[in-house]
Amino acid sequence: MNSTSQKINEGNFFEDFSIGQEIFHATPRTITNGDSALYIALTGSRHPIASASTVAESLGYLSQPIDDLLAFHIAFGKTVPEISVNAIANLGYANVRFINPVYPNDTLYTKSTIIGLKENSNKKSGIVYVQSNSFNQKNEEIISWIRWVMVHKKNMSFTPQKNLIPDLPESVVLDKLPIPSFFNGNAFNTRWTKSDNLWEHYKKGEVIYHPSGMTVSDTDHTLATKLYQNNARLHFDDFMMKKTSMGKRLIYGGHVISVCKNLSYDGLENSLAILAINGGTHSNPTFGNDTLYASTEILDKWEIPYRSDIGVLRLRLIGYKNMELDAFKKLMPIENKNYHEHIVLDLDYSILMPRKKG
Amino acid sequence: MNSTSQKINEGNFFEDFSIGQEIFHATPRTITNGDSALYIALTGSRHPIASASTVAESLGYLSQPIDDLLAFHIAFGKTVPEISVNAIANLGYANVRFINPVYPNDTLYTKSTIIGLKENSNKKSGIVYVQSNSFNQKNEEIISWIRWVMVHKKNMSFTPQKNLIPDLPESVVLDKLPIPSFFNGNAFNTRWTKSDNLWEHYKKGEVIYHPSGMTVSDTDHTLATKLYQNNARLHFDDFMMKKTSMGKRLIYGGHVISVCKNLSYDGLENSLAILAINGGTHSNPTFGNDTLYASTEILDKWEIPYRSDIGVLRLRLIGYKNMELDAFKKLMPIENKNYHEHIVLDLDYSILMPRKKG
Amino acid sequence: MNSTSQKINEGNFFEDFSIGQEIFHATPRTITNGDSALYIALTGSRHPIASASTVAESLGYLSQPIDDLLAFHIAFGKTVPEISVNAIANLGYANVRFINPVYPNDTLYTKSTIIGLKENSNKKSGIVYVQSNSFNQKNEEIISWIRWVMVHKKNMSFTPQKNLIPDLPESVVLDKLPIPSFFNGNAFNTRWTKSDNLWEHYKKGEVIYHPSGMTVSDTDHTLATKLYQNNARLHFDDFMMKKTSMGKRLIYGGHVISVCKNLSYDGLENSLAILAINGGTHSNPTFGNDTLYASTEILDKWEIPYRSDIGVLRLRLIGYKNMELDAFKKLMPIENKNYHEHIVLDLDYSILMPRKKG
Repeated sequence: MNSTSQKINEGNFFEDFSIGQEIFHATPRTITNGDSALYIALTGSRHPIASASTVAESLGYLSQPIDDLLAFHIAFGKTVPEISVNAIANLGYANVRFINPVYPNDTLYTKSTIIGLKENSNKKSGIVYVQSNSFNQKNEEIISWIRWVMVHKKNMSFTPQKNLIPDLPESVVLDKLPIPSFFNGNAFNTRWTKSDNLWEHYKKGEVIYHPSGMTVSDTDHTLATKLYQNNARLHFDDFMMKKTSMGKRLIYGGHVISVCKNLSYDGLENSLAILAINGGTHSNPTFGNDTLYASTEILDKWEIPYRSDIGVLRLRLIGYKNMELDAFKKLMPIENKNYHEHIVLDLDYSILMPRKKG
Repeated sequence: MNSTSQKINEGNFFEDFSIGQEIFHATPRTITNGDSALYIALTGSRHPIASASTVAESLGYLSQPIDDLLAFHIAFGKTVPEISVNAIANLGYANVRFINPVYPNDTLYTKSTIIGLKENSNKKSGIVYVQSNSFNQKNEEIISWIRWVMVHKKNMSFTPQKNLIPDLPESVVLDKLPIPSFFNGNAFNTRWTKSDNLWEHYKKGEVIYHPSGMTVSDTDHTLATKLYQNNARLHFDDFMMKKTSMGKRLIYGGHVISVCKNLSYDGLENSLAILAINGGTHSNPTFGNDTLYASTEILDKWEIPYRSDIGVLRLRLIGYKNMELDAFKKLMPIENKNYHEHIVLDLDYSILMPRKKG
Repeated sequence: MNSTSQKINEGNFFEDFSIGQEIFHATPRTITNGDSALYIALTGSRHPIASASTVAESLGYLSQPIDDLLAFHIAFGKTVPEISVNAIANLGYANVRFINPVYPNDTLYTKSTIIGLKENSNKKSGIVYVQSNSFNQKNEEIISWIRWVMVHKKNMSFTPQKNLIPDLPESVVLDKLPIPSFFNGNAFNTRWTKSDNLWEHYKKGEVIYHPSGMTVSDTDHTLATKLYQNNARLHFDDFMMKKTSMGKRLIYGGHVISVCKNLSYDGLENSLAILAINGGTHSNPTFGNDTLYASTEILDKWEIPYRSDIGVLRLRLIGYKNMELDAFKKLMPIENKNYHEHIVLDLDYSILMPRKKG
């Protein structure tokens, strides 16, 4: 006698969330050199610290760390089964802070706290605000972030007791940036990157049009997304997606961030670590066989108190696809919320860069 | 003066095998964390023990082991050049036993013994029964299995002295299951997997319809099959396969097993180790761009003598492709040897699962 | 106020090179087991020394080394931004010597010296001859090579003071071959590879038609080329390449070498290390979805003074695509510079092979 099992975890719907609720996510994940090699193969990263142990150790790292975004994608992927498996849309990120480096053989786990809820006016869905924190096996905090997602109701008669929209910082301000105290910018050698452009050389308002493009296949993005153990179905199930209005699989937005970030190496070679992501929008979907390009605007630059070796640049990374540079330049400047359909990413983030010596 | 070399090993034909013959296979293979990362990227595995060293070590493993099926595919791939490179079909598996864990940096080699031969009535081919055993660098046995393949004759006048069909166990019975003595199920924490379903919660006859699907590209399956150093040509050579009745490359059956096994994570989160594969059929071919889905039936459940921490579930994993769940349900129950053309895998295997405490 | 940044390194044009100029390339790169696993997955390598630590250590290696060609591609990739990003064509290689093994966790960097310049008669471009040397973190030389590339002028009025074409060796002669002194060929065991064909069994003029073929997808070759951190745009940017006469992305020639080399395993199982590449031509482009095949001719064989355990074979590896073996045989012998459009590679290289014992 066969019977259908009730053991499938359907994930959470809007009514399943409550303010202050804590969620411990599965599955802990040990990150190794194998993941780093795959990350280079999938994104083309030439990030000098994640590329060479000699560079990393010279700058004060214990050993060659895991790429900031690789660690973020794995930490983030953990939250999908409970937070976004029933999401209609991933609406935004805020206050993403890269607190401590991740080293090979570290094991990451992630917990989340629900910090806001807002029912939509259609009463069929709502927005859930989530604070997530990822830790290593020594319970050191690695990365923390806020995101908000639009989630379906299953029980349409549910209404939250009250709507609460949390205060979100417009950006991670200087004194909240996790400046690595061990980092020795004086040891930096421009021979590692072949670029003499240091913190002093960038000016507010400057726009860098990165010269390279990268075509992303369905196999590329699904390999990446499986590596991150992110199981959101719309990336993997082509049979299902063919029957949707989209007609095909969607690329995980985090992979778009990684590819565009790595395209931005040319012109930002000495960007050595991501300190924070201030905010981000996946302004249009990206699909298999799209070719991605990127530009970066220097939004701001900050000195760090008592540090003459390193400074902060706040950057706006725009990712666009299937478009000539000249056509893209005609769209500039890009105002928020008014995105051409070929603009796929608008990311505001802050990085650490060595300063000129002496 | 050029001359054509005779150095190509053509592989064995039916007349090249004899009962009792022992074959040592090339090439020894060291498995590393790099292979594990790729396995996660290729299959989407979230297997908690192969995902996190902290989980593995808590449960009594020396360190984070290699995924059971990754080790099996590599061990199995070794046998292809001598056993199945001229095979017409891989007919079945029996008595696959996962005897000891494989750890990163272990080196595997495989030997085989011919245990049965049966000429086909057409006198053009025959069935070869093979016992294979894989060992690590310390000569500890890792995995053993029986498979039988249909192989062409090259010399049509050959007839074996006698046909011998070995006795094959219908399943690996409880007292032949390699229960890991070091395994400490009491240390298991459901927080690792976010599922409270333990051995006690599963009932014989229960069917789990796993919710996710995964599209497999030609690049995915060839990356996997190259990783396993399995050189069967029909997976790799599209130019050749286009001229066959199949018209395209075939996906290595072992990769189909891995993908379906990993799709079965949702609903079987606490399945912690494969103990045995009792039997398996690749009921239809799988091709690039097919989307795979899976269901699992609980065939049986066994207590383990003197062990209150763990129990055994015997499972039937059905893999199907390019089909809605509702259409698949109408095919249930699936009787052996009567497979809809979209059913690609019927695998009978036994796993270890923690029990409820106290 | 936005302003366009001038920070993009355009790469060098013909007039930017001068005889004797030294260039230190970015980015140092630590190679790990993760890279090795990916290399096996991308090429299907069964090279016994790069496959198993037990084999490598028996033969005198400190541990399982990085595959010769994987190390070469990474070392070579470093030179692209300064040498060939504006190249019209990569014209040839000479005097490639594999001087010391690369071990996991070694960090490679590469420097180049300009050793020749020749303006083309059209005055719009010229040929640049480059000597490159790659070192590990202990400043041990790993690989050295010469290549020459045709590079555009940007400043058309430039004319070099004089043309200098360096003397290039027709091949790396025996006493310049980097024979590894630690290598213990007496420890070799044919059971590792299942081939009894040793140095003595190969004769000059013998041609081996390797039986297998491998279809290479755009995802395969871009994963490989990103792994090597080779950022030549024509491999990655399909949107740009669709507008060229080629109409699509080109496969990095080094990946073609790797795939053909690994196809040549069948018939050359006991080829244990590459000592030198004497010369090479990418005679036609290779594209995604092409299926590659290979043949090898034994060009020469050399005894090594005072070494009875190992000998040298000089080999000619021909790579061809999308062609039946019978059709390919009709093209033999292949005269230099007269290549059928399906012949993609003509590589002259020297390898080390164990000899018959006593």
